[in-house]
Amino acid sequence: MIQILPLRGMGEIEPGSDLAGALLAGLDTSGLALQPGDILVVTQKIVSKAEGRFVELSAVTPGARALELAETTRKDPRLVELVLSESSDVVRAVPGVLITRHRLGLVMANAGIDRSNIGPAGGERVLLLPEDPDGSARALAGAMERRTAVRPAVVISDSFGRPWRHGVVCVAIGVAGLPSLLDRRGDVDRDGRTLEVTQIAVGDMVATAAGMATGEGAEGIPAVLVRGYAVPGEERPATDLVRPLTEDLFR
Amino acid sequence: MIQILPLRGMGEIEPGSDLAGALLAGLDTSGLALQPGDILVVTQKIVSKAEGRFVELSAVTPGARALELAETTRKDPRLVELVLSESSDVVRAVPGVLITRHRLGLVMANAGIDRSNIGPAGGERVLLLPEDPDGSARALAGAMERRTAVRPAVVISDSFGRPWRHGVVCVAIGVAGLPSLLDRRGDVDRDGRTLEVTQIAVGDMVATAAGMATGEGAEGIPAVLVRGYAVPGEERPATDLVRPLTEDLFR
Repeated sequence: MIQILPLRGMGEIEPGSDLAGALLAGLDTSGLALQPGDILVVTQKIVSKAEGRFVELSAVTPGARALELAETTRKDPRLVELVLSESSDVVRAVPGVLITRHRLGLVMANAGIDRSNIGPAGGERVLLLPEDPDGSARALAGAMERRTAVRPAVVISDSFGRPWRHGVVCVAIGVAGLPSLLDRRGDVDRDGRTLEVTQIAVGDMVATAAGMATGEGAEGIPAVLVRGYAVPGEERPATDLVRPLTEDLFR
Repeated sequence: MIQILPLRGMGEIEPGSDLAGALLAGLDTSGLALQPGDILVVTQKIVSKAEGRFVELSAVTPGARALELAETTRKDPRLVELVLSESSDVVRAVPGVLITRHRLGLVMANAGIDRSNIGPAGGERVLLLPEDPDGSARALAGAMERRTAVRPAVVISDSFGRPWRHGVVCVAIGVAGLPSLLDRRGDVDRDGRTLEVTQIAVGDMVATAAGMATGEGAEGIPAVLVRGYAVPGEERPATDLVRPLTEDLFR
């Protein structure tokens, strides 16, 4: 049995907050203690908040390219400037939509920059993705280990749209302590045939499973414990889930 | 708490198999009984098998377009003919890769046609997707209700590659008894802001969460019970998850 356990009572996370401490408080409030094999799934938003990844829009001066794309997309030119500064490529820009390849390799709307649920004073404040989510995940796993003597796996999750599907699911943007991608090349099925599906996006599956419990902001569940999911294989970072543009098979 | 409970002991599923009976046997073997609110996630493979969606490749005569695409993709021309007959558009054809839009709207490799794990005699036999997976899900929910007096929600899952991500996750190709897509347009977050993410692909999230337990064939876990996930809203079929090509924002 795999269990998906929402963590309540973590309190508000702010720049400089002790995220490991908040997770411990959340575990405690939820009547849980870390066990070997546990996976902590933490939403990107609170990692970014704790790391102080806020930007005041009033401090941003849009350049020529941002002004042009802001007109196309009908978005705030300052937001577009930030999106471009976070991105390596523009994938799609039409009215209401700006999809880019984030410097981390993630293809997503607005480079993952968030305006909702970032505090009452956040009207003109936006929140960027963590600088190095795999590093954030490893640091959090280490901090939890120092304080509980159990090193959990950590997945930092974000919600993502998909090209051919309505609605969002979650993906892993940071992973520590488990293989983000499980390679089964060479394995055979029960009839001795080589498996057709050879790579499983374990990190994204864990993030999405946890997403059933975090919901989308209104519930205020920023982290989830996934228990009972034993993944074979060595640690691989979330960056291993990124398919290079040159390998894109769908276009 | 949400629980992901693998069903063991379902036995082999063959054309004409009583799938509801097999699920009941699986629940029983696993020490489970259906409860209100339960979601049964059933892999596409056993639904297709029970519905007899096998095709003998030796009975397929490839046409001109199939021969041409088989040369491009280096695939069996008879398989390519079947893929084309199941599809409305070819999205990508390069050596080793044939991605199409299935007539159900699903953009996937080989129109979801499966060669692995379809029985020892299946060397030249392939398995198509169910004819009407939403209908299959509704029929299964009804059959379970008749035999247990509890009507579960049912999700029929399949594994899917993604354009910009390595590895597969799962999607819902058939849904009964829950909203495949949860529309939160107009909801506000805890600070009173309108949510940026307004549609959640609940069906795909449930399918992916269950995918942690089904694995990819070698484990022989063809169905999973998801317990404790309360989804608000009315039933919406899996076809609501399909984004029309004209709305594709990513290309």
